[in-house]
Amino acid sequence: MTAPTTADLLALDRAAQDLLFRAARTANTFTDKPVTDAQVAAIHDLIRYGPTAYNGQPLRVLLLRSAAARARLLPYVSSSNRAKTASAPLTAILAADVDFHERLPELYPHRPQARDWLSDRPSRVEQARFSATLQIGYLLVGVRAAGLAAGPMAGFDAAGVTREFFPDGRHEALLLLNLGHPGRDAWERRLPRLSTEEVVWTL
Amino acid sequence: MTAPTTADLLALDRAAQDLLFRAARTANTFTDKPVTDAQVAAIHDLIRYGPTAYNGQPLRVLLLRSAAARARLLPYVSSSNRAKTASAPLTAILAADVDFHERLPELYPHRPQARDWLSDRPSRVEQARFSATLQIGYLLVGVRAAGLAAGPMAGFDAAGVTREFFPDGRHEALLLLNLGHPGRDAWERRLPRLSTEEVVWTL
Repeated sequence: MTAPTTADLLALDRAAQDLLFRAARTANTFTDKPVTDAQVAAIHDLIRYGPTAYNGQPLRVLLLRSAAARARLLPYVSSSNRAKTASAPLTAILAADVDFHERLPELYPHRPQARDWLSDRPSRVEQARFSATLQIGYLLVGVRAAGLAAGPMAGFDAAGVTREFFPDGRHEALLLLNLGHPGRDAWERRLPRLSTEEVVWTL
Repeated sequence: MTAPTTADLLALDRAAQDLLFRAARTANTFTDKPVTDAQVAAIHDLIRYGPTAYNGQPLRVLLLRSAAARARLLPYVSSSNRAKTASAPLTAILAADVDFHERLPELYPHRPQARDWLSDRPSRVEQARFSATLQIGYLLVGVRAAGLAAGPMAGFDAAGVTREFFPDGRHEALLLLNLGHPGRDAWERRLPRLSTEEVVWTL
């Protein structure tokens, strides 16, 4: 893809633009090459600096490394996502800690009373979802920053995965993510994107 | 900040890591230097390639350029965010198009029936919020990629902003964002971040 001239207006160099956005694609197949714990730690160590409300950082990442854990997940995955989830070198459940407010006295020390502002569970759950989803955005960029392909999947039974993997009632599954190196026929053609005129308005 | 050795495991070079995450901070003050429409277009043209469910791309960005538009926003902003919102060179309302499904026959052409899967409004609103929030994550990275400071603000009356700026009932305000070049005393000290051991678990 030829980068448009707007690319020259950015401080980020073109190779990085391509790595993170322009040439990056959601992979549907993966090679056998593993994704190591060190790579995952490097990704997290980068993206953990992204901003969240109250610095609450509610995202939690559950890596399914064992065959037994992967097998527990598959019944909850939509049929169209099952084959790739079974064959990806690594699959993660991305979840929100809906009791993230308990850590706020430590994470947001200049306003220790923030924990009490979030004592109402329904509004706290909404906040947890929002900030964890922002963090998933950073995480997808971070996976690409590691030179890996990300395969996010919204097609799954989120309530079922929450019950199966987070019986503590404290976490809520938001998205599944396959990680690896792209395999054969890893993607379809690029789908159309909205133009700036369609997305950005001015008052 | 000294980058940890995990930085060497990433394909993204260190300068880009610093620009986007490690050295980037949420700015609370800005200089007078303007943020141009060309810069905003360059940011959008980069981040529009980020993945969304059904390729639905529900994020909409309303730039408040006129003094009148900014004045309409301020009553809905929390007192602690009002001064910086009044003085930022550019403030944007980030919103979700809750009727994004209408565009799916064009944006997700291989499954034109996806529009009908989303005919139930409550679940569609949830999907719109989720994908638009992912896109806000990409956008914050994109603002930094442009060499600008981002000042996201969750402290505002979202329902009030939705009523005031989106009376069509089709859009929902999710976050406010100040954009500009960091000014004097633009940030407090960096708040603590959770470690990989606290966030990433393995089964």
